[in-house]
Amino acid sequence: MLAEFERLAEARMAPGPHGFFAGGAGDEATLAENVTAWRGWRIRPRVLVDVATRDTGTTVLGQRLPHPVLVAPTAFHRLATPDGEVATARAALAAGSVMCLSTFSTVGAAELAAQVPEVRRWFQLYVFRDRGITAALVDAAVASGYEALVLTVDLPVLGLRERDLRSGFVLEEAAAIPSLAGSGVPRRMTLAELTEVVDPSLTWADLERFAGQSGLPVLAKGVLVPEDAERAVDHGAAGVVVSNHGGRQLDGVLATAEALPAVVDRVGGRADVLVDGGIRRGGDVLKALALGARAVLVGRPVLWGLAVGGEAGARQVLDLLVAEFDNALALAGAPRAADLDRSFVQPARRG
Amino acid sequence: MLAEFERLAEARMAPGPHGFFAGGAGDEATLAENVTAWRGWRIRPRVLVDVATRDTGTTVLGQRLPHPVLVAPTAFHRLATPDGEVATARAALAAGSVMCLSTFSTVGAAELAAQVPEVRRWFQLYVFRDRGITAALVDAAVASGYEALVLTVDLPVLGLRERDLRSGFVLEEAAAIPSLAGSGVPRRMTLAELTEVVDPSLTWADLERFAGQSGLPVLAKGVLVPEDAERAVDHGAAGVVVSNHGGRQLDGVLATAEALPAVVDRVGGRADVLVDGGIRRGGDVLKALALGARAVLVGRPVLWGLAVGGEAGARQVLDLLVAEFDNALALAGAPRAADLDRSFVQPARRG
Amino acid sequence: MLAEFERLAEARMAPGPHGFFAGGAGDEATLAENVTAWRGWRIRPRVLVDVATRDTGTTVLGQRLPHPVLVAPTAFHRLATPDGEVATARAALAAGSVMCLSTFSTVGAAELAAQVPEVRRWFQLYVFRDRGITAALVDAAVASGYEALVLTVDLPVLGLRERDLRSGFVLEEAAAIPSLAGSGVPRRMTLAELTEVVDPSLTWADLERFAGQSGLPVLAKGVLVPEDAERAVDHGAAGVVVSNHGGRQLDGVLATAEALPAVVDRVGGRADVLVDGGIRRGGDVLKALALGARAVLVGRPVLWGLAVGGEAGARQVLDLLVAEFDNALALAGAPRAADLDRSFVQPARRG
Amino acid sequence: MLAEFERLAEARMAPGPHGFFAGGAGDEATLAENVTAWRGWRIRPRVLVDVATRDTGTTVLGQRLPHPVLVAPTAFHRLATPDGEVATARAALAAGSVMCLSTFSTVGAAELAAQVPEVRRWFQLYVFRDRGITAALVDAAVASGYEALVLTVDLPVLGLRERDLRSGFVLEEAAAIPSLAGSGVPRRMTLAELTEVVDPSLTWADLERFAGQSGLPVLAKGVLVPEDAERAVDHGAAGVVVSNHGGRQLDGVLATAEALPAVVDRVGGRADVLVDGGIRRGGDVLKALALGARAVLVGRPVLWGLAVGGEAGARQVLDLLVAEFDNALALAGAPRAADLDRSFVQPARRG
Repeated sequence: MLAEFERLAEARMAPGPHGFFAGGAGDEATLAENVTAWRGWRIRPRVLVDVATRDTGTTVLGQRLPHPVLVAPTAFHRLATPDGEVATARAALAAGSVMCLSTFSTVGAAELAAQVPEVRRWFQLYVFRDRGITAALVDAAVASGYEALVLTVDLPVLGLRERDLRSGFVLEEAAAIPSLAGSGVPRRMTLAELTEVVDPSLTWADLERFAGQSGLPVLAKGVLVPEDAERAVDHGAAGVVVSNHGGRQLDGVLATAEALPAVVDRVGGRADVLVDGGIRRGGDVLKALALGARAVLVGRPVLWGLAVGGEAGARQVLDLLVAEFDNALALAGAPRAADLDRSFVQPARRG
Repeated sequence: MLAEFERLAEARMAPGPHGFFAGGAGDEATLAENVTAWRGWRIRPRVLVDVATRDTGTTVLGQRLPHPVLVAPTAFHRLATPDGEVATARAALAAGSVMCLSTFSTVGAAELAAQVPEVRRWFQLYVFRDRGITAALVDAAVASGYEALVLTVDLPVLGLRERDLRSGFVLEEAAAIPSLAGSGVPRRMTLAELTEVVDPSLTWADLERFAGQSGLPVLAKGVLVPEDAERAVDHGAAGVVVSNHGGRQLDGVLATAEALPAVVDRVGGRADVLVDGGIRRGGDVLKALALGARAVLVGRPVLWGLAVGGEAGARQVLDLLVAEFDNALALAGAPRAADLDRSFVQPARRG
Repeated sequence: MLAEFERLAEARMAPGPHGFFAGGAGDEATLAENVTAWRGWRIRPRVLVDVATRDTGTTVLGQRLPHPVLVAPTAFHRLATPDGEVATARAALAAGSVMCLSTFSTVGAAELAAQVPEVRRWFQLYVFRDRGITAALVDAAVASGYEALVLTVDLPVLGLRERDLRSGFVLEEAAAIPSLAGSGVPRRMTLAELTEVVDPSLTWADLERFAGQSGLPVLAKGVLVPEDAERAVDHGAAGVVVSNHGGRQLDGVLATAEALPAVVDRVGGRADVLVDGGIRRGGDVLKALALGARAVLVGRPVLWGLAVGGEAGARQVLDLLVAEFDNALALAGAPRAADLDRSFVQPARRG
Repeated sequence: MLAEFERLAEARMAPGPHGFFAGGAGDEATLAENVTAWRGWRIRPRVLVDVATRDTGTTVLGQRLPHPVLVAPTAFHRLATPDGEVATARAALAAGSVMCLSTFSTVGAAELAAQVPEVRRWFQLYVFRDRGITAALVDAAVASGYEALVLTVDLPVLGLRERDLRSGFVLEEAAAIPSLAGSGVPRRMTLAELTEVVDPSLTWADLERFAGQSGLPVLAKGVLVPEDAERAVDHGAAGVVVSNHGGRQLDGVLATAEALPAVVDRVGGRADVLVDGGIRRGGDVLKALALGARAVLVGRPVLWGLAVGGEAGARQVLDLLVAEFDNALALAGAPRAADLDRSFVQPARRG
């Protein structure tokens, strides 16, 4: 069903912005494998369980959420809808989701908080070469009621996204991006130019510093191997997001559905594990939670919802996915999301 | 060959009813995998066995059947042919099969028994929220000579079938469905509305109650994992049907050919194991029996037979499948269906 | 390259006979898998071996052959070329191959021997219900210098070949087939009617009788599992042909490249193992010999050669395959076919 | 991105030369599998590593190279660009690569050295039946500053390249190939005729002789199995190139990404292992090095670069691949190519 939003969005959007949202790195193999890797797991449903009452709720960072479908941080929502991230945040609020605001949002963190104060919100952080700007971004997020920092750890440099090169995609109003105010970026720039602001020398010590100083729990987003997940926890992360940046950074890495189980095993409950990448169905959400994720983040489908119908479209996307997840819980015989464990999945036999 | 009935039926039927019969849940991945998963098993044929005389017969629920190809319970046969389930039952009788009548049949259980008294018949049971109706359905089945109850355990709620949403499929004469008489359903309704009558709180205790009270053997239909198969037997089921509801409930679950062996192993002969889903060839029937099933149930192909040629079409479908199975027995060197065991199959090497 | 003969033959032949030659049973899955299963094995080539002089020769049934590419027994060569099996035998002679004449040849065993006395020839035997005819066939083969009996063990009944049903293929001159002379078959008949003459009650005792009485070595053709290969040897077979009848009998059985290694292991050198099915390249021949086969039999490609160019076409097909095999030996670093062993192959990693 | 050069080159070149460069042996299965086999490995990236400064450098044959992307030896560059190998060598120089000149180059070894003296260069050696010519070729290479001999060990005879047969490809100026001067070859000839000059009786003793006498390190190019790699080292090779000649020799052998790890393990550091075949992306380079290769060789893409833009095109191809590799190092968290080891890859789960 989310696939229909994807089709409609492509028809409505200009090729440049569409390609920027839709594309991945290199041959886009990982982009495709993120979706297909979930099919490599089969659901093992249980029957004759009373599922008249269901509870899709989960607990992330010690807080109860009504369902595990979160809005992934993605850049430049005004490319999809005039209200940009405000529309997204309203959709997240209405759908009972969490809004992860990107550093590269087209609405500032404070303004979003002012416009949609009720939405539960996290702030995704790119660490800039100019650490003063980063400190200001974190301070603003703390001041504006963001409840967690999602530190992106997989963009020391930008992945090679060939759709953007082919379309000649440039940010027409880069200088208007609130987090870039004061960083002296030019008005029009490519994404590669823009991401030059990101510090490629970020290390575990930085993670530890953010975890210690901001007062907010920090999630390390972009972890794919258990060694790094363990290191993240050891350096104070409250959680890790198993992610390959939606296949947009290094083509050929592990698909997230491949990577998740080993990460969960290594973390061993010492922190929360979340996952994004290729989640398109309620059954995918169920598989992710059965494999040990606390929640999933959804990126492109929300953007397609925005492009198709603004706030209402994004909300429809989130509601649909939650409804599918609720249906999957009922049909898998797990009335509470918390009932899910590894016994609900097994690798597909390949025939 | 059954594939030709499928093609012809699509050409003859209106899109709504056709989509209702043909469709599956979600991305229809399980719908497709049910068919392809049988190909994941290779037949290991034996030669120089005297196969001049064959016996396709099997024993199910202690009763001898001339062959293991049964008519799966499917809803609303009048959508395929004017005589509805009467035509199907006559086909089953002529083909030496067993007719499993659906709760959602468009001919009532008693009327069917009156019209086709000679056919061996089982009654598929959905348990309604209003248990009085259910009790009346069971009583009617017992009184009308149905020999087993096939309790569907995988529809606590309806799967998300997007073809029906797209086609806008509604039951034009829902109120005329005999089992719904007295349940106060409106004249026109969607399948989702209709299945609201089904009780989502059904549990193993209910299965045990039906097994104890009706006097008929009870088969639990919709089991995919060995834990549930064992539980079914422990709660009094005479058999289990390994099924994912033809891929119509939760997309992404085990294909039935994947699920069957572990269920057979766990049941260990304490009850009969049957299987449905994706059976399109006599070789599939052979594989199912070699893996330990006592019989198979065939749903959509019978409906395509009905749509193409009414009673005669359904009978052709059944006869063809039995003839293919007989041929497969001869060519596998198993003159009696009872000769089949695990040594007749092995997983395909994937090249 | 053989693929071009296949394409050309299809263009030249009438659909009925072409479909009869080209088709397989059921969904033709095994027909396709016979070809693709060879790709499941990788060649492990050795370098810096002196391959200036090669020897493609093999030893089968104690006799030295210049190469391991034999002409499989196939029926009704006059459907492909006016001279029928005489053209094939001449091609086999010229190419240094062995001609396996089918019981259902359109040229009689004695006549073929008279016309092409120099060709090394084997006689493929279907055992008829009327054992008198069979005895006469064997006597004629012995008398006419056939050096081995290839007893087909996988056709107790005919496979379900749907192309023939669709094309309405009938043998126009069935009564003119020499081996059927005196069996009272009608002039025009379907293949199903024709194969009614074959005895479906053939057993290992019969194999033993033929092995003992004819004075010729007997190869059991149509073995796919090691149990049967062992039984064949125990009952006096001089060899077994790993074969699924070109995918024409039971769809869904083991592909021959899947089945071969276990058969070779079980036979353990007590008899010769040959293989047919899907051999289209010299590399396939190399793989077959590396897996332990003494020789391969090639069916359809020879027929396409006949259809395209009569004797010359069939010879070209054989010569091409031998030349490819010779090239493969050189490039695999095995100057003598006898150098090949399991160390020259390994299963493909599936990426 | 290299794929676009491939497309453009096909559009610009005449079918004969294009097919000669692009084609492989037989069914071209190995040609395709060389590319896809790299996808069978997943990259396991590490995050929060300081990658602000990267070092793509590697050490091959004891010499430091700025990156591991070498120009594979390929024949007849004048078919792609008027300046032939001079253009390639200039591109290699500009890109910091190593130029491996083919024995069948259209520019002589001495002339190339004279024209592009600064390029680091190796000489690929076919050993001719006439060892006098070979000795002269080696002497010339030594005299002209070539730093290594790349002895091709997988062309005792020519593979069966059907594109050339179909296109009727002939070398119009074979007699003008410098290394063939004096060998008496005719003016126009097919590749099969040309390669008749190559000695099919080459053995390990020859390798040992070249390793001992030329004074240059010798790399054995065309090794696919660990037994041969070990033998090469035992006979004095300074390195082995895991290669199947770009799928042009024996179709059906191991893909190079399949073959590499076992070769590396067996060599155990006693010599350098390089690899070619199917390298099209920086991520492939990373995988090759993580699996233990010291460098990769790139053949066809350089030819496509030549065909599209001469020296500049070839340089663009090399620069692109190095830039992709540099990006992959950053995103995999391996700032130095020397950091790569097996922990950076794992086999893909097949879903």
